[in-house]
Amino acid sequence: RISWISNIIVVVSPENIETMKSIIEKYGHKRVLIVEGGITRHRSIFNGLKVFAENEFPNHLLQKPEVVIIHDAVRPFVEEDILSKVVMAAKEHGAAGAIRPLVSTVIASAADGCLDHSLERARYRASEMPQAFLFDIIYEAYQQCTDYDLDYGTECLHLALKYCNTNAKLVEGTADLWKVTYKRDLYAAESIIKDNLSQQVCVITYVKEAVAQVGFLLHESLKSQIKVEAVSASLSKNDSRLEDIFSGQCYNFVYVNDKKFAIQETQQLVAMLEKSNIPLLYPVVLISVHLDVSENISFSIGMEELTRIKKFAREAKKKNILVYGLLIQYK
Amino acid sequence: RISWISNIIVVVSPENIETMKSIIEKYGHKRVLIVEGGITRHRSIFNGLKVFAENEFPNHLLQKPEVVIIHDAVRPFVEEDILSKVVMAAKEHGAAGAIRPLVSTVIASAADGCLDHSLERARYRASEMPQAFLFDIIYEAYQQCTDYDLDYGTECLHLALKYCNTNAKLVEGTADLWKVTYKRDLYAAESIIKDNLSQQVCVITYVKEAVAQVGFLLHESLKSQIKVEAVSASLSKNDSRLEDIFSGQCYNFVYVNDKKFAIQETQQLVAMLEKSNIPLLYPVVLISVHLDVSENISFSIGMEELTRIKKFAREAKKKNILVYGLLIQYK
Repeated sequence: RISWISNIIVVVSPENIETMKSIIEKYGHKRVLIVEGGITRHRSIFNGLKVFAENEFPNHLLQKPEVVIIHDAVRPFVEEDILSKVVMAAKEHGAAGAIRPLVSTVIASAADGCLDHSLERARYRASEMPQAFLFDIIYEAYQQCTDYDLDYGTECLHLALKYCNTNAKLVEGTADLWKVTYKRDLYAAESIIKDNLSQQVCVITYVKEAVAQVGFLLHESLKSQIKVEAVSASLSKNDSRLEDIFSGQCYNFVYVNDKKFAIQETQQLVAMLEKSNIPLLYPVVLISVHLDVSENISFSIGMEELTRIKKFAREAKKKNILVYGLLIQYK
Repeated sequence: RISWISNIIVVVSPENIETMKSIIEKYGHKRVLIVEGGITRHRSIFNGLKVFAENEFPNHLLQKPEVVIIHDAVRPFVEEDILSKVVMAAKEHGAAGAIRPLVSTVIASAADGCLDHSLERARYRASEMPQAFLFDIIYEAYQQCTDYDLDYGTECLHLALKYCNTNAKLVEGTADLWKVTYKRDLYAAESIIKDNLSQQVCVITYVKEAVAQVGFLLHESLKSQIKVEAVSASLSKNDSRLEDIFSGQCYNFVYVNDKKFAIQETQQLVAMLEKSNIPLLYPVVLISVHLDVSENISFSIGMEELTRIKKFAREAKKKNILVYGLLIQYK
């Protein structure tokens, strides 16, 4: 995503380079180059910037960019909107960074561990990431840095101000830009991901009136709670409406049918999902609903079918697709 | 808990006073008095302090305290340790407050929305709660406050410094003191509560060698992951070891037995748990394990028993006790 970013330099500590390589390979990331980090934040960022200036990677033919974005991996929820805002502001002002209101008052302590003074909260902001810079400005700033800056500094905007006299433009960021710092933040991050994944459900029904009707009713009863996409399609033909669905950002699917051997269609859907790369980043949920309206089917035959789905679900789970079977019998 | 706190004044906005009253009643809170809040933080705190000085509540005979603690309800994970630390420090210094390291750099913005300067992160701290004061100092400070302070100020330590020349002692607090601010913080808070509740499990076995042996083995296999308390006791006698367990801070119980009508014992345990007040604040989990070693019992009889437990569990859930039945048959 975000096609206007040409190269992504990931600065990694030496002991994690192999792990990072395998992550990049596993998820098929493009445009990514790994650079070894330094012992402090500023030294790591400087290493990342050098790639464009010192041509250490002649094979990659990296062109010196006009604007460079600096971001922390501990802020995983960065949207294209804020990236584009800081880049545009950096083009105009030379430097720009995301900010957030302070949640707590900030105070200065004296040498004896007592309060020296407190800052008026409304006048200050928390400096967050992403930040963007004209490459020449931030690279110049890092080149002029003292060792003290490199070892104890934390703020890139400060370097641009101190060494290049550039007052960064401050851009209001979203709350989700917070730094995942404590164990509790992992749970908070999980909740945000789950929220995002459960924004939309896609109901697929076999092209048969009674079944399509069920899909319609499901759509009606769900639509007040969640965005619902409903499609009536035949799996056997390469239906373009299915292609559309699998190229979207939907992670939840309900497949409704009334055929006897639903497992084959479920398998076909799983194969299509797998091919779509949707399950690469996040788990996909597929609920296979089998409507059974026949008079003479026994409970045990239905159970047998569910057992087959259960076994198949175990396989699908390895591909990050969570398959659930639901058998509805009525007369 | 925390018996050395004499009175708790809860300052509540007018529209939430009835809700707060019902919460206090439901959970049986003692020592709590409700006071109507003002339109700003400082005005609310001032209202709370006035209770001790102005004797508005003659029936409660509130004595003016030596030290008063000020805390935010949005920081639910406050431990006795930090409360006692700020109180002791306030006794010595007149004022004291919890602090935390800054997570992000703090910057000052100029009028044009650009960076004015950034603060050296190591020299500053986030001011958190709880804070404690000699009552006379903080009350004096609030009495001398200007309307501007009351309307726009946020920091009690600042008032004590400005009006009473008292430099508060700063006390390092725990990470869990953070302010529950965003939706994601609710998930983070939930994770901390769950973590706390799952610290300990209590295994209760019927006094019979084979069963007690199962309890011992369960203890052995769990103890590397969780604190385990194992008790072999008879439920029919008023066993003091059971009383001890129910007066502790354990929220997870496994009851192992090999009797035919385990549901009666499970019901007895639920009654004891209910009486203990443990389920008042948090849900209690009780797993009732029925070991069935008899040769001639049929699967359906076991299922019948589980159905009874399931029905009973539905009742127990209303009392905040989550009952699970586990039937283990072996030959």
